[in-house]
Amino acid sequence: MTVWHGGGRRIYMNEVGTRDGFQAESAFIPTEDKIAMVNALSHAGMNKVEVTAFVSPKVIPALRDAEAVMQGIERVPGVVYSALVPNLKGAERAMACGVSELNLVMSASESHNLANLRMTRDQSIDALSQVVDAAKRASVPVNISLSCVFGCPMEGDVPESDVFALCERFVGGMGVAGVTLCDTTGMAYPGQVRTLVSEFKARWPQAELTLHFHNTRGMGLSNVLAAIDAGADRFDASLGGIGGCPYAPGATGNVCTEEIVHALELMGYDTGVDLAQLIEASNRLPSLIGHDTPSQIVKAGRRLDLHPLPKDMDAIRERALGATPRATV
Amino acid sequence: MTVWHGGGRRIYMNEVGTRDGFQAESAFIPTEDKIAMVNALSHAGMNKVEVTAFVSPKVIPALRDAEAVMQGIERVPGVVYSALVPNLKGAERAMACGVSELNLVMSASESHNLANLRMTRDQSIDALSQVVDAAKRASVPVNISLSCVFGCPMEGDVPESDVFALCERFVGGMGVAGVTLCDTTGMAYPGQVRTLVSEFKARWPQAELTLHFHNTRGMGLSNVLAAIDAGADRFDASLGGIGGCPYAPGATGNVCTEEIVHALELMGYDTGVDLAQLIEASNRLPSLIGHDTPSQIVKAGRRLDLHPLPKDMDAIRERALGATPRATV
Repeated sequence: MTVWHGGGRRIYMNEVGTRDGFQAESAFIPTEDKIAMVNALSHAGMNKVEVTAFVSPKVIPALRDAEAVMQGIERVPGVVYSALVPNLKGAERAMACGVSELNLVMSASESHNLANLRMTRDQSIDALSQVVDAAKRASVPVNISLSCVFGCPMEGDVPESDVFALCERFVGGMGVAGVTLCDTTGMAYPGQVRTLVSEFKARWPQAELTLHFHNTRGMGLSNVLAAIDAGADRFDASLGGIGGCPYAPGATGNVCTEEIVHALELMGYDTGVDLAQLIEASNRLPSLIGHDTPSQIVKAGRRLDLHPLPKDMDAIRERALGATPRATV
Repeated sequence: MTVWHGGGRRIYMNEVGTRDGFQAESAFIPTEDKIAMVNALSHAGMNKVEVTAFVSPKVIPALRDAEAVMQGIERVPGVVYSALVPNLKGAERAMACGVSELNLVMSASESHNLANLRMTRDQSIDALSQVVDAAKRASVPVNISLSCVFGCPMEGDVPESDVFALCERFVGGMGVAGVTLCDTTGMAYPGQVRTLVSEFKARWPQAELTLHFHNTRGMGLSNVLAAIDAGADRFDASLGGIGGCPYAPGATGNVCTEEIVHALELMGYDTGVDLAQLIEASNRLPSLIGHDTPSQIVKAGRRLDLHPLPKDMDAIRERALGATPRATV
């Protein structure tokens, strides 16, 4: 069995559009629309939904309704409802709303961590440790998303030793259940992904590993496949491919959920997702965010969404068979 | 060695933008600009350039200067200068201009062949045979591009038996040197590509096999990698990702040459192409065709085209180290 033929293997899809996507939009999306979108994604069969972020409403006004959204959504059995929290205060707000998982974030690159989080990496580790301790006391699972693992838009390549030293702090030191290796600005390429994921799986076979790719340079799906080939089975993706990173100009969005599901299902993987429902949800995005999304599946349809024959097909055939063969291309 | 690590393996890139791309543009591109673009692509290291098509100027006015372009270009040693020809008349025009190779085309699907070429497949085979005979007499190599191999936008899946029966006519019957399996409207997916290319290579190991993918549903690069894993090493691609198929509404362009080269070179393959020159050529496209291209490498740059640190980075660090850790995400 090769990576090209899934043979029914299970792949777990995590939706980040409602957080990573919505936070990047200038228009405020009404709370009830956010709730309806999370519910649609749950019913479409996503494994996990990153519902919102519990951050300062001054910093990210787009997500100022985090409590109302988290409390308003349906809890579909089996779906993990996660929220991004930057600090202890955010974690307390999130846990008060009954999140199923906290997602913490820091960067593998010192420059990106300072630019994005206004802390050194050492300071971030301390802050994250406090949150992890609080979450443990409340028995809430924690995932840490490590940004810029595959490259920093300011520093370039990030040493593997930095990445794995941080992972060891998270998994070995803090004892978190899950780690997400994030390609924050689309610098990952398949050979690198294959190597890094293999090494992670060899070092921490019990950790729940997720990969988070952007399609900035057209390598999103190929990176997903390289990661699967190295043993990964959990992926972040964003409905419509929305979202991006304000610290990396030119960077386009996350890999598009419906593009990844469409490809993986064709290849025989079991994503557990109903693609028709997913596309229906994605079709509602432009009216919410006020612009089209990069989704190529929304534009082109699924591969077997066929087009009608030309209306004059019979006449074309008759002309062809009655005439001397001639080409018109 | 896996597909994810090229280990210096040679991949041959064929540029089709100057034919497949330019013919789809409404604006007429001046002959001297076409010539300059072909020359730039030659010097950038493309293995083959499909320079133009020798078709009726009434049907495709955009390429009405085929003779002038083919006669005006530099012939860089080692580069194959190909032209698409629909029939004997086109072949004679092309050979009179000294093409290095004729590219013929027909479709694996009866409906697409009728809609696109106004002939039945049987009629196309007869027409192609005439051209192949004439080319043999003139000792000009022939490649046949078979459209809709991975699916027809009107019929859906095309039986493998149809595809291989046609390939047998081309390779075994007509004795052509090369066959291109074309995913004309972006319906190919990696599992299918892996299987079909493996079978082709097993049946006709001596034939020069090229793959032609579109990125319509975001699977372009992954299909290239699946084909490489099955033993393919020749790919059509279009500078800037321009071009498309008028018979398949919604279908976006060919896979983008600079995206494929960027990814393959990162993975350790040897494409023989100078990526910087390729990007420079792609940057000239919008002024020629009057609109932006889908190229994500032109938009985002190469993965190590870095961004400057924030101007206030020192102040950020000082504030961070002087203050109680706090996150602002």
